[in-house]
Amino acid sequence: MDDVRMIEVKEEILADNNQVAAGIRERLRLKKTMLLNLMSSPGSGKTSLILKTAQALQGAIRMGVIEADIESKVDAEKVAAQGIAAVQLRTGGFCHLDATMVTQGLDALDHMDFDLLLIENVGNLVCPAEFDTGAHKNVMILSIPEGHDKPIKYPLMFSICDVLLVNKMDYLPLSDFDLAALRKIVVALNPKIKIMEISCKTGEGISDWIDWLTSEVAAFRSA
Amino acid sequence: MDDVRMIEVKEEILADNNQVAAGIRERLRLKKTMLLNLMSSPGSGKTSLILKTAQALQGAIRMGVIEADIESKVDAEKVAAQGIAAVQLRTGGFCHLDATMVTQGLDALDHMDFDLLLIENVGNLVCPAEFDTGAHKNVMILSIPEGHDKPIKYPLMFSICDVLLVNKMDYLPLSDFDLAALRKIVVALNPKIKIMEISCKTGEGISDWIDWLTSEVAAFRSA
Repeated sequence: MDDVRMIEVKEEILADNNQVAAGIRERLRLKKTMLLNLMSSPGSGKTSLILKTAQALQGAIRMGVIEADIESKVDAEKVAAQGIAAVQLRTGGFCHLDATMVTQGLDALDHMDFDLLLIENVGNLVCPAEFDTGAHKNVMILSIPEGHDKPIKYPLMFSICDVLLVNKMDYLPLSDFDLAALRKIVVALNPKIKIMEISCKTGEGISDWIDWLTSEVAAFRSA
Repeated sequence: MDDVRMIEVKEEILADNNQVAAGIRERLRLKKTMLLNLMSSPGSGKTSLILKTAQALQGAIRMGVIEADIESKVDAEKVAAQGIAAVQLRTGGFCHLDATMVTQGLDALDHMDFDLLLIENVGNLVCPAEFDTGAHKNVMILSIPEGHDKPIKYPLMFSICDVLLVNKMDYLPLSDFDLAALRKIVVALNPKIKIMEISCKTGEGISDWIDWLTSEVAAFRSA
């Protein structure tokens, strides 16, 4: 395999993507719609968090969802079943969402007004971190069963996020996950990151997340 | 982003990779070393399984490990601490291991004789499934906390594997994971796959895995 060629193509693709992403940020700033990109490994709880968030914000914040998956539309269907405006993007084998795909999602939702749009990215701790989606905020989930050493192995993802949600806290008693060790590693990578401990199952910590989100949306819309 | 160009480059890269992978398979067949590629999401238990496997095979099968991570060498150090020959490959940002990287790992271990080499691929359910590593067998782990819907979302990975290990069975009582539903979805994608339920923590099912592995290595070496 010719790594050099692959790296050159990757750099060109990333540069093109950054331009499209900057355009998305500006387009949504004019519409006063905050765009939030949610990332994690497969099965860490992205869809569950979106459903919890939609429930909590109902009536207070107009929210929509852009779902991305390689295959299937199960997530968009779950979200739409809760009465939330949702569009499903199939990445067709690509392992991440790029800004052009997000543009397609925005175009599909363009007839509606939102205060907040959430992107559920492809479940992957690697590639989504490299592609700017045009989001104003990046949020990631790490779940307890994945282990506290993940930021050592996937440092870029932890470096680019504004918030780290440590989900499935209800699994903690069964696990040897070391929360203090996690905080130490993550803060060394990204001193500005906010870390919140939550459980989408028991509801633990969800109010902290909703408080943060509500205040960010208010600040964004009044800017 | 120019998807067409990206797809063309990807096809060329995959074709080059397939050639290198075929060479690896032949090289190792001559040495009577079986190569097994282990894949999963981050934190599903790949390193724990390798440690359990090494313990069980000690004295019976000469085993070595090729570790792949984007960053860090914690896994190779954990494995080497158990007295197992291990080499760590850093993919330098790449989200998967390709056959050329595996060749580098094999070259580093070439002075030793093995019956079995295990590759611990990058934690990722997407990209590693696309790149033939030259392995004779592909094995994946799905852990209970990830949920039984993962084969719907990441079908390629489940389609190309010879064995699916359902790990962290000790989490089942806390979870709504539906084992029957998982089996149904996976077998529809890949009728020949073997599914084993295990827990690296409690040891549940590990003997089934070791029996399968021992018999595969014996068959490979006598072929």
